[in-house]
Amino acid sequence: MKKTIGILGGMGPLATADLFTKIVSMTKAGCDNDHIRIFIDNNAQIPDRTTAILKGGADPLPEMESALRNLEKCGASCIIMPCNTAHYFLPRLQPLTSTPFISILEETAKACAATYPGKTAGILGTTGTLNTGIYSKALEGQGVAYVLPNEEQQKTLMDIIYSIKGGTMLTDPAPFQSIMEEMAAQGADYFILGCTELPVAAQQLALAGNFIDPTTELARSAIRFCGYEVNE
Amino acid sequence: MKKTIGILGGMGPLATADLFTKIVSMTKAGCDNDHIRIFIDNNAQIPDRTTAILKGGADPLPEMESALRNLEKCGASCIIMPCNTAHYFLPRLQPLTSTPFISILEETAKACAATYPGKTAGILGTTGTLNTGIYSKALEGQGVAYVLPNEEQQKTLMDIIYSIKGGTMLTDPAPFQSIMEEMAAQGADYFILGCTELPVAAQQLALAGNFIDPTTELARSAIRFCGYEVNE
Repeated sequence: MKKTIGILGGMGPLATADLFTKIVSMTKAGCDNDHIRIFIDNNAQIPDRTTAILKGGADPLPEMESALRNLEKCGASCIIMPCNTAHYFLPRLQPLTSTPFISILEETAKACAATYPGKTAGILGTTGTLNTGIYSKALEGQGVAYVLPNEEQQKTLMDIIYSIKGGTMLTDPAPFQSIMEEMAAQGADYFILGCTELPVAAQQLALAGNFIDPTTELARSAIRFCGYEVNE
Repeated sequence: MKKTIGILGGMGPLATADLFTKIVSMTKAGCDNDHIRIFIDNNAQIPDRTTAILKGGADPLPEMESALRNLEKCGASCIIMPCNTAHYFLPRLQPLTSTPFISILEETAKACAATYPGKTAGILGTTGTLNTGIYSKALEGQGVAYVLPNEEQQKTLMDIIYSIKGGTMLTDPAPFQSIMEEMAAQGADYFILGCTELPVAAQQLALAGNFIDPTTELARSAIRFCGYEVNE
């Protein structure tokens, strides 16, 4: 029996489509039947994770569990979530199921250590991701040094992230580039696109730089978990 | 209770990702929660539809039904299939469920009649789609005139389609462009990208022309079925 992937998605929808596309594109396959069976619940009803963490907004767990149960019913062998901030809730989600989650944070931290040994990461993510320290902890676990955006840079980042979530096509690369230049001056050698909307933004803006794309790292790990080969 | 979409996918996987991306991009939404809940079974195990039709290959119906049952369990309000050729099997699939399918053929034929009234369509698709006449019948139902590729053009088209299915990135637009020029000389005013790999190919090759993209038409109809607004 071949292993399958369950994508607990909708956080946000475009990031979910990005992860799905990356898994398909990165799977070594010669025809349709060489690909991995993938189940997706793009549950757009999951309350905003950052709002829940920072402002006591609606708990996203019930809607996340609703999607989890659908993926279980389909027979997913593993679960992945294309939302970095959502991983704050992983310690409450994993005990609800025997199906293993693959963590975007852990896979990204391993990729940072392997790709840029001894270098310093600039962590770009939602305020929810940064304030909870979930990325810092994962990076520290792999001995990876990092710098964080300041308050003003963080505000600009959130505007970019919520534009993508709202479906706006970005055209001006200047705000994103300024953040990278300023953080480089503070010691960042490369950047973690640590919110799943950010690889979408970087692609829309055709940004150049040393990036670690957590969505790509998660796709790679999920493909390997299922016993398939990755196109490199 | 908001309506949801079930995508019976895997035919092929990249076309499934394309349909999903188009639904998300075309939905009028200001944030994650404004989007449609979408369930996907990217069942890569569904046997090749063209091979089944033309060469008596494995019947795709059992694996299509397996995906259908998963989408039913998730609670899909309608089912759509990002594979034109698969619609040959729709008369056997629809009786298996009370959940309505939205047909890519019917929606495309309606879009042709509305967008290019009185003009002649060039139908581009798999040999399975063309030989069974499923597109011709749908177009005739809407009074749309059409021309079909000749045998040599069809062979080239199949090479393009199976390259995309195999994950090859296309770089040479010449073969695709030749087919369009030749069919234009035979009377085609515009082209139906009537295999879900072809919009992907046209995008990769940055082809210009008068196109009807069935994947876009299917996305639009599914969004409206669910009671959401379409970004135009």
